[in-house]
Amino acid sequence: MKIAVLGHGVVGSGVVELINKNSDIISKKAGTKVEIKYILDIRDFDDLPYAKLFTKDFNVILNDPEIEVAVEVIGGLEPSYSFVKSSLLAGKNVVTSNKELVSVKGDELLKIAKEKNKFFLFEASVGGGIPVIRPLNRCLAANRIESITGILNGTTNFILTKMVKEGYSFEQALKTAQQLGYAEANPAADIEGIDSCRKIAILASLSYGSHVAPDKIHTEGITGIKLEDIRFADALGYAVKLLGTAKKNSDGTIFIMVAPFLVEKSLPLAGIEDVYNGILVEGDAVGTSLFYGRGAGKLPTASAVVADVIDCAARFTNHGDFFWDVSSEDLVADYKKMPCRRFVTVEGGAVNESDISALSDMKQYIVNDGKTAFITSVQDEYGFTNRRAEFESKTHLKITSVLRVYNIENGEK
Amino acid sequence: MKIAVLGHGVVGSGVVELINKNSDIISKKAGTKVEIKYILDIRDFDDLPYAKLFTKDFNVILNDPEIEVAVEVIGGLEPSYSFVKSSLLAGKNVVTSNKELVSVKGDELLKIAKEKNKFFLFEASVGGGIPVIRPLNRCLAANRIESITGILNGTTNFILTKMVKEGYSFEQALKTAQQLGYAEANPAADIEGIDSCRKIAILASLSYGSHVAPDKIHTEGITGIKLEDIRFADALGYAVKLLGTAKKNSDGTIFIMVAPFLVEKSLPLAGIEDVYNGILVEGDAVGTSLFYGRGAGKLPTASAVVADVIDCAARFTNHGDFFWDVSSEDLVADYKKMPCRRFVTVEGGAVNESDISALSDMKQYIVNDGKTAFITSVQDEYGFTNRRAEFESKTHLKITSVLRVYNIENGEK
Repeated sequence: MKIAVLGHGVVGSGVVELINKNSDIISKKAGTKVEIKYILDIRDFDDLPYAKLFTKDFNVILNDPEIEVAVEVIGGLEPSYSFVKSSLLAGKNVVTSNKELVSVKGDELLKIAKEKNKFFLFEASVGGGIPVIRPLNRCLAANRIESITGILNGTTNFILTKMVKEGYSFEQALKTAQQLGYAEANPAADIEGIDSCRKIAILASLSYGSHVAPDKIHTEGITGIKLEDIRFADALGYAVKLLGTAKKNSDGTIFIMVAPFLVEKSLPLAGIEDVYNGILVEGDAVGTSLFYGRGAGKLPTASAVVADVIDCAARFTNHGDFFWDVSSEDLVADYKKMPCRRFVTVEGGAVNESDISALSDMKQYIVNDGKTAFITSVQDEYGFTNRRAEFESKTHLKITSVLRVYNIENGEK
Repeated sequence: MKIAVLGHGVVGSGVVELINKNSDIISKKAGTKVEIKYILDIRDFDDLPYAKLFTKDFNVILNDPEIEVAVEVIGGLEPSYSFVKSSLLAGKNVVTSNKELVSVKGDELLKIAKEKNKFFLFEASVGGGIPVIRPLNRCLAANRIESITGILNGTTNFILTKMVKEGYSFEQALKTAQQLGYAEANPAADIEGIDSCRKIAILASLSYGSHVAPDKIHTEGITGIKLEDIRFADALGYAVKLLGTAKKNSDGTIFIMVAPFLVEKSLPLAGIEDVYNGILVEGDAVGTSLFYGRGAGKLPTASAVVADVIDCAARFTNHGDFFWDVSSEDLVADYKKMPCRRFVTVEGGAVNESDISALSDMKQYIVNDGKTAFITSVQDEYGFTNRRAEFESKTHLKITSVLRVYNIENGEK
């Protein structure tokens, strides 16, 4: 299956990188080889190994019947809208990461796609790489969606996190975000809530089956948030978060807005910090689900774009994407070779710090009621069993509890 | 599209209830009316309004060419395995919530489904209603999955939460779980980790494309966890969680196990409490994603089953499931009518408690540096604006900050 990538900015170059890097698994899931035939950009990229794929003329792509999917990652309304519309009208599938386009023109473009029996997919338009559009639409398809509430913009969440954690003023936090590349030189779309507004517009349109235009949504940003407010809120037990929220009313209308909200600290949304996004969906059957992850970035966003490309391909092929083979005998490694830290409790008397340090590179230990608890160094189970025997024989004490510590290096970051 | 529901236990009756309750949106998403033609159960249910749908003879279903989807919600290996296999061989799609069946026989059944070009879908087998199978397989299709780690069993998570929060012993916490209906009279499958083992087997098989049988997975339960261990771990900054975890090694093998682990409290998995499940997926492009929600229960599980039924239908119809209409003018309600609590800061001098109580039904307020902050009663914005004016005119003080409080009644629970 041949595709064209429209735009070679951050997301576009990420799409090219990802398709090249993971072409084996992408082809397997798609049931066909996914090949980039053109990249559209007005700029020159002569030094790239794939320089020959570039074109500056959209009509080359539009008029090439081999192109089955146009991937629009230019952003903004024009020329994206014209390119996407004419691609659909020409009978091509379209995948986009463009939240402005989907939120403003989604109803028209979905209608054309339906008439042409083609896909218009936009998983990457909300939540970056976090799966949310497809889960909302497919996995929760049997639910009436009662509400959707999300931290939809990583830049503003980073700023608010810095204010409460580091005591930064809004201006200091914004400057830090800009220095780290999380906020643009002109940060208005983020801090005024415009980006979040487009995203909640898309989520609400999908959930309620009716286009909710961004200009119908009351939108407040975070520029008016004072450090003092955040500190008071913190003392009262709340985090301050910029939320996009939509809720169905019993009369069929919806409440929808973007604004900073206080969120009780015991709620999952309150714990979503830094550049992370989280989207909470409430359905009448499923109850509450939450989707969490990095809401932006080159490869996370490319991950969502390429998933949509694979969907376009999988439609025409056998559904080989849901499959696993018979296992080979040696797939599962000996779990005793898995290195990790361990929590141990020692009984039988006081433990010398030097004896602890034979098992642990961490300085903290806790003594209570004659028992000592601490966290060991990273070891596999064979190594630990040996060291444990040495420790018990040397100290004449007994390790009575052993529990593994989840290895954050290999999981959450 | 006509379907048969095999089994009328908790999940089966939930599937019937949900299809009846939300038949309008289900038909819309499926692109066709989804109709239950048979319910298979050896028991009698003569009092139910849909009693005439019941049959005790599986062959009636198997030999009815009108039945396009068999929904297996009996559980256990037999007769489920025989029913599912013969349904697939007869050219029917199969949807199941049966984690034992999928984890033990998945490779064989997926192979038959592929040969017959039919669906064998099992979203409900992991995480109840939380979308995880489809997101993992479809939305993260462009990723190499580096690791998957989950709190996959609500019963054990409830027990561990009760131990740390209420100081219950393991036995007390288990008894409470049984009284609340979260644990069965024979709780072995939960507390010995068997349920979690089946679920991580399914997630690993799907992620690594190769069947990982449950009996290959080292599995430890939580019966050996002492309250004292949990308290020590808490003091050291860790939560104790029963995790299923799978991680790809550079040599192509995987580490996979089910065991209690300590999890640093700052990590999202540590904050997943009570009967909630959370599944953390790490992909090479997307980074870390987390899926969170209720991992069990009648309607949440039915929600996942019916989503798979809709997928079977949508395959044969236009993809009307991804669609929204042009909006009606009056869809979006006036946001100023949305009731919520508000956080306010008052400046200009001390505030009387009686003046606060005119705005607030909450007792807590904070005074710092001559400013007072508190949370107001629930009101819409028109009501609040009036009361604010009255407050400022009566007290000659000024409300300088106003922020909405996220309404938990309409969101997270």
